[in-house]
Amino acid sequence: MSTETLAAPTFATLAPPKRLLFGPGPTQVHPRVYEVLSKQIVGHLDPYFFEVLKEVQTLLRMVFGTENKFTIAISGTGTSGMETAVSNFVEPGTKVALFAAGYFADRIGEMAKRQGGNVVRLEKPWGEVANDADATEFIRREKPDVVAYVQAETSTGAFQQGKAICAVAHEVGAVVIADCVTSLGAMPVNVDETGIDIAYSCSQKGLSCPPGLAPITLSPRAVERLKARKTTNGSFYLDLKLLEEYYEGRKYHHTASATMWYGLREALVLIAEEGLQDRLERHRRAHVNVVKGFEQMGLRMHVAPEHRIWNLLTPRVPEGVNDGNVKTRLLKEHGIEIMGGFGQLAGKVFRIGVMGPLATDDNVQMFLRCFREALQAEGYKG
Amino acid sequence: MSTETLAAPTFATLAPPKRLLFGPGPTQVHPRVYEVLSKQIVGHLDPYFFEVLKEVQTLLRMVFGTENKFTIAISGTGTSGMETAVSNFVEPGTKVALFAAGYFADRIGEMAKRQGGNVVRLEKPWGEVANDADATEFIRREKPDVVAYVQAETSTGAFQQGKAICAVAHEVGAVVIADCVTSLGAMPVNVDETGIDIAYSCSQKGLSCPPGLAPITLSPRAVERLKARKTTNGSFYLDLKLLEEYYEGRKYHHTASATMWYGLREALVLIAEEGLQDRLERHRRAHVNVVKGFEQMGLRMHVAPEHRIWNLLTPRVPEGVNDGNVKTRLLKEHGIEIMGGFGQLAGKVFRIGVMGPLATDDNVQMFLRCFREALQAEGYKG
Repeated sequence: MSTETLAAPTFATLAPPKRLLFGPGPTQVHPRVYEVLSKQIVGHLDPYFFEVLKEVQTLLRMVFGTENKFTIAISGTGTSGMETAVSNFVEPGTKVALFAAGYFADRIGEMAKRQGGNVVRLEKPWGEVANDADATEFIRREKPDVVAYVQAETSTGAFQQGKAICAVAHEVGAVVIADCVTSLGAMPVNVDETGIDIAYSCSQKGLSCPPGLAPITLSPRAVERLKARKTTNGSFYLDLKLLEEYYEGRKYHHTASATMWYGLREALVLIAEEGLQDRLERHRRAHVNVVKGFEQMGLRMHVAPEHRIWNLLTPRVPEGVNDGNVKTRLLKEHGIEIMGGFGQLAGKVFRIGVMGPLATDDNVQMFLRCFREALQAEGYKG
Repeated sequence: MSTETLAAPTFATLAPPKRLLFGPGPTQVHPRVYEVLSKQIVGHLDPYFFEVLKEVQTLLRMVFGTENKFTIAISGTGTSGMETAVSNFVEPGTKVALFAAGYFADRIGEMAKRQGGNVVRLEKPWGEVANDADATEFIRREKPDVVAYVQAETSTGAFQQGKAICAVAHEVGAVVIADCVTSLGAMPVNVDETGIDIAYSCSQKGLSCPPGLAPITLSPRAVERLKARKTTNGSFYLDLKLLEEYYEGRKYHHTASATMWYGLREALVLIAEEGLQDRLERHRRAHVNVVKGFEQMGLRMHVAPEHRIWNLLTPRVPEGVNDGNVKTRLLKEHGIEIMGGFGQLAGKVFRIGVMGPLATDDNVQMFLRCFREALQAEGYKG
């Protein structure tokens, strides 16, 4: 077959529709981030690339709340960050104690099993979290090698505190993996203060960058564990030993994307300029206002007030309303993206993200107006 | 430790230096690709994303030279494409016959071993390729489950023909993986005509897009093999069964980057507009002119004429010249990036890429002038 017979038809100029990304992610991107994405690339071994890397590392330490030297970003989406954490610290036979209360915790468990890990679970209904006593009993009983929890569970809207988990995990000699995919840049992650050993995230939620990079940071304890590992990671692409040789030693491993690193840098500089504390406070305030708006329209929140993620809200779908129809209506009429629940919460909650440039009073009020109209158009009387 | 103590210093506006990317990759990006990278993103489950996906699939089939339905891009760099190919088709005990004549072939072998594969090798010196008789004898003797070769070996500059390899592989019931990282978009890849079952590439060489996506295509035979696989892929992120459910079934798997897909689409549309055959011919012509220029300055090519990759050239480093100094001088004086050899060819060859927007008569002449000057400044008398 000649390639000529496959000649492509004419393609229109790319013209994406305008969207207001009020879903769990990706979220709205700041114009300054868009601007740097079109800057000229440099090679993955160019001295300038390593200047950008160094700045990004400094800035990532700020948002992670850590002094960890080993702080980089994986060349993939948040899921690649999760797989990096799991594949580097779970070998065949590694015992993993998993705090299981949502889809992303389940995904960690699935990945750990694929690595040959022995996964034990502390189950909670989706939307709840483990308390300190539960956590302590679970870890002391199981004496795992690795403890894993999801700080901000995007599938449920619940935020899991980690101090007790980390303290007890260290008591039994385990390292702690925390999924910070949804919290980074929007809530206090506090890696060092909490005691997290391996924290990973993504570029496209609280950091408000397009998807494509997965920040990750390792405590000295995690680095020691990594170096002591005897079997080879099944993954070459995500092997942190090789990635350290690249990012620290400038030894070729893969072709990192200058474009993505430019975007991540700009998103982080925007956070530094705003001030991390001010930014987090802006997200907290937006959260309070969204919840107030939901309650005024008679909706009930799925998660108890003290356990809510600020930037990812899960109001319950009112009786008689089809969540899919509301979602489609918002997209068609206003270009607003939201998501529904899935797994245990399919059809039961909406998943609404209020992050980055959208976490302002005006945007919150605009969203609430459109959301209420859409609910009413789908038969809701509230 | 409070996060405030980590407050970042002031960061300058991002201002990357101008580069002329004459290295093995990444390569120069077309202005129209840069333009779309700053277009507003949509979500990874947005109907518009799937429109873009469908167009990219059509266009990828054109450059791959295939009618394969299963044609997507992995959310990672070229190395993630390699790992996708290997991890989905090599299970513990799988026998892999590897055509080993360069660094990237070795990397396939390394990845296959990490998957528990049993790798047997047909060795050739770096810069040479296997002939049909060698290939036939090797595959008939070994009767492997998987055959792997590198179509365009970026570490040596040699192009491996694949027709005989594929024919004999199919005769013994093996599937064939071909690394097309450097060839796609710059040389005829001809997946269907050659008989390749799994071909992968990257966005940042012949396609002239920033790094970040790894196109991959599977023949019906490969799809059948994938479906028949009994063990689970150790990687969740690169599991093609899950990726098919996402890209075909629109079931969430990871957050694909609209930005990267916009860029890939535009790069492919540019190829379609130029016409694939015309584009390949432009690369062939640039190749001929570069070789002519090298020969005029007395350099010797490392690869025999009939086995040369058009868009990646490996002239030998002349006696008494330090390749690292030439490289540094070109970068400092002209912003021109080239690379040296590594492994067996460290210090012995330059690796020079002439691809995409740079594969024109003017750019070739400009490059040759600067390269000659740099060689002479480093003591070369040619």
